[in-house]
Amino acid sequence: MDIKLPRGTQDILPSDTAKWQVVEELIREQCRMYHYKEIRTPVFEHTELFTRGVGDTTDIVQKEMYTFQDRGNRSLTLRPEGTASVVRSFVEHKMFGYPDQPVKLYYMGPMFRYERQQAGRYRQFVQFGMEAIGSSDPAIDAEVISLAMSIYKRAGLKSLKLVINSLGDTESRIAHREALVNHFEPHIEEFCSDCQNRLQKNPLRILDCKIDRNNPLMETAPSLTDYLNEESAAYFAKVKEYLTMLNIDFEVDPNLVRGLDYYNHTAFEIMSTAEGFGAITTLAGGGRYNGLVAELGGPDSPGIGYAMSIERLLLAMEAEKIEFPDTTSLDVYLVAMGEEAKKKVTELTFELRKHKISADMDYLERKVKAQMKSADRLKAKAVIVIGEDELEKQSVMLKDLSTGTQQLVPFTSLIDEVKKLTEAK
Amino acid sequence: MDIKLPRGTQDILPSDTAKWQVVEELIREQCRMYHYKEIRTPVFEHTELFTRGVGDTTDIVQKEMYTFQDRGNRSLTLRPEGTASVVRSFVEHKMFGYPDQPVKLYYMGPMFRYERQQAGRYRQFVQFGMEAIGSSDPAIDAEVISLAMSIYKRAGLKSLKLVINSLGDTESRIAHREALVNHFEPHIEEFCSDCQNRLQKNPLRILDCKIDRNNPLMETAPSLTDYLNEESAAYFAKVKEYLTMLNIDFEVDPNLVRGLDYYNHTAFEIMSTAEGFGAITTLAGGGRYNGLVAELGGPDSPGIGYAMSIERLLLAMEAEKIEFPDTTSLDVYLVAMGEEAKKKVTELTFELRKHKISADMDYLERKVKAQMKSADRLKAKAVIVIGEDELEKQSVMLKDLSTGTQQLVPFTSLIDEVKKLTEAK
Repeated sequence: MDIKLPRGTQDILPSDTAKWQVVEELIREQCRMYHYKEIRTPVFEHTELFTRGVGDTTDIVQKEMYTFQDRGNRSLTLRPEGTASVVRSFVEHKMFGYPDQPVKLYYMGPMFRYERQQAGRYRQFVQFGMEAIGSSDPAIDAEVISLAMSIYKRAGLKSLKLVINSLGDTESRIAHREALVNHFEPHIEEFCSDCQNRLQKNPLRILDCKIDRNNPLMETAPSLTDYLNEESAAYFAKVKEYLTMLNIDFEVDPNLVRGLDYYNHTAFEIMSTAEGFGAITTLAGGGRYNGLVAELGGPDSPGIGYAMSIERLLLAMEAEKIEFPDTTSLDVYLVAMGEEAKKKVTELTFELRKHKISADMDYLERKVKAQMKSADRLKAKAVIVIGEDELEKQSVMLKDLSTGTQQLVPFTSLIDEVKKLTEAK
Repeated sequence: MDIKLPRGTQDILPSDTAKWQVVEELIREQCRMYHYKEIRTPVFEHTELFTRGVGDTTDIVQKEMYTFQDRGNRSLTLRPEGTASVVRSFVEHKMFGYPDQPVKLYYMGPMFRYERQQAGRYRQFVQFGMEAIGSSDPAIDAEVISLAMSIYKRAGLKSLKLVINSLGDTESRIAHREALVNHFEPHIEEFCSDCQNRLQKNPLRILDCKIDRNNPLMETAPSLTDYLNEESAAYFAKVKEYLTMLNIDFEVDPNLVRGLDYYNHTAFEIMSTAEGFGAITTLAGGGRYNGLVAELGGPDSPGIGYAMSIERLLLAMEAEKIEFPDTTSLDVYLVAMGEEAKKKVTELTFELRKHKISADMDYLERKVKAQMKSADRLKAKAVIVIGEDELEKQSVMLKDLSTGTQQLVPFTSLIDEVKKLTEAK
């Protein structure tokens, strides 16, 4: 019998979950500052949500979804991303009627994509993302980008690059689309079969094909930037103006198109430029998706959002050698000598915990020496020892493990003395 | 187009996620006190893990699992509970070799059971659970129960009932099993077909059949308590002794058997006795599972754990009318009069956020009156107003919304003044 972890997934063990907790709390804190509130949607949705919401010509929908029938014969899919679910929920709960618009939401949780295995990529991964739905003010585009950058800065990352682009409005996109078809059509037989299918359906997708990325026609492809109409260009100029005002450095990359169908206007990605970070440098990506709310049955509310992988954030922090605070160390370890002492140790361990002092004891009937070793290994701030002597004196021996000093403390004043000792650290 | 939430699932909206966050932080805090550390395992596992780890005669495995093939033709199942995954991880990562035993772990995350819909039951629900693997000290049984109770107490619940039982060791269970077969066999045709199957495979399961629960043979069934051998009885006595020592009230219920195959020795459930809590009163359940680690390919390490539903905890808190702290209110709302003022407002909003002051502004180009209304609705502690006058004076009007007093504050001392005002609240 040898049941292993499913391929492409990971267990996150206690030494690492401590880091996850630190990062997640930092993100929640930043969301509070920016006044985004959490929403939690189910891990699976009706499959149709993603074929419509993400786009049925995308790699995600065509190749990477975990789709299955439930016992009631519904086609369900483990969510591959978060935006479609949040927009579905926005529509279903009629949030467009909330008095305060835009509705500013964030989510954090597991996503699922059946991808080829490679370093830093998992089939189950955790995404944090946020959505601001109900405003087409360029200032909110800047807000979303600023929040994204601020999380990385708070985490201590220094080697960051922000790349932005505008995909324009519908009119601009149609003009650009025609130009793309004209550009690729004469040579389409050089491209993979997926790209051949994309040519008429969604030629923009050709630009982020992983197979054909070195074809010279990619570089000479008509750039969206040249096809932006006046309104779209003005919108993009405003976004850049706000970013500059907020001291957020950026580069414009006319080839940035993002892998999801629903984007228009502002698109952005954040990369790590840290040495040794690895081949995939993208940490986060997002953009504006005016039209998606209507596509999913709501009114014509504009929206913008972004998502980032927590795994990649942690990898980037590792690449930049950022240290984490030690949040798992113990306040007190209690050592018992003999059976009677064990009872008192048990009682006191639980009493300390009630007073918000983290405490642990031996559950293996080990000798004193082995118990002392545990206290060291667990980096306890203090050790309490109880034997026959101490029981008789209704006291414990309290030892400060950082200084080595020890003192006899009566049971009755133990909580106070331990608090003094541990809070000073 | 009308894509809804999958049946039996829920969206947790911002007004409720704030409560979830409070409760989850409280649980994490208690785990720190008791020195349990978080582990995160994937949402799906190989199906075999649950058929072996939970037991293939259980309702969960037979009727309630979300099982599907992935694109590599593996049979995967969305986890219906957490213990099997944690034990799988304990074995796979050889945690039995860690120097500090028992290994004390907790988890918190979504679980999935395809159940009939009813109030307070969802097909996706969130469980918190913990496992202490590697010790068969009765004191650790008391620790697990104490931690479970302490979470409810910290949450403010008063109407609680703890019920315990011993399922005994293998020898005791075999003796009891024989007695059960002899008891039910002559009348087995009165029972449902599931129970008829259970008679030889696992007669203990008959006792928690939902269909036959009113059959009079249920009440007269031989009780496990009468079949405990000396060692098992002594173990159970020790657990009760520790609970008494720790001032934890309990009742012994000889009919408590739990719905999973892997339990032995200590089993327990915690119920809410609050009025109006509803028909299903169980908040949490757990027990000892010596043998499960070996069953899943590890050494013969003993273990004990429990799990609770966060949804039920929140329902119980609601039934007892426990108030939650308001964690979502805003520090400052910034109001702009005119386009030039808007720029300054944007700049200051982001500046405040950098200084850990939560701040928001208008993104809909609304009139001043509408902006002021937003500030009230969002329960901001303060409002900042900027118009032409203020721009000229390089200042803002800062208004304390609780007292109504306002003052002109220069841009340069704004952060300090806002901190004074908001931190005083």
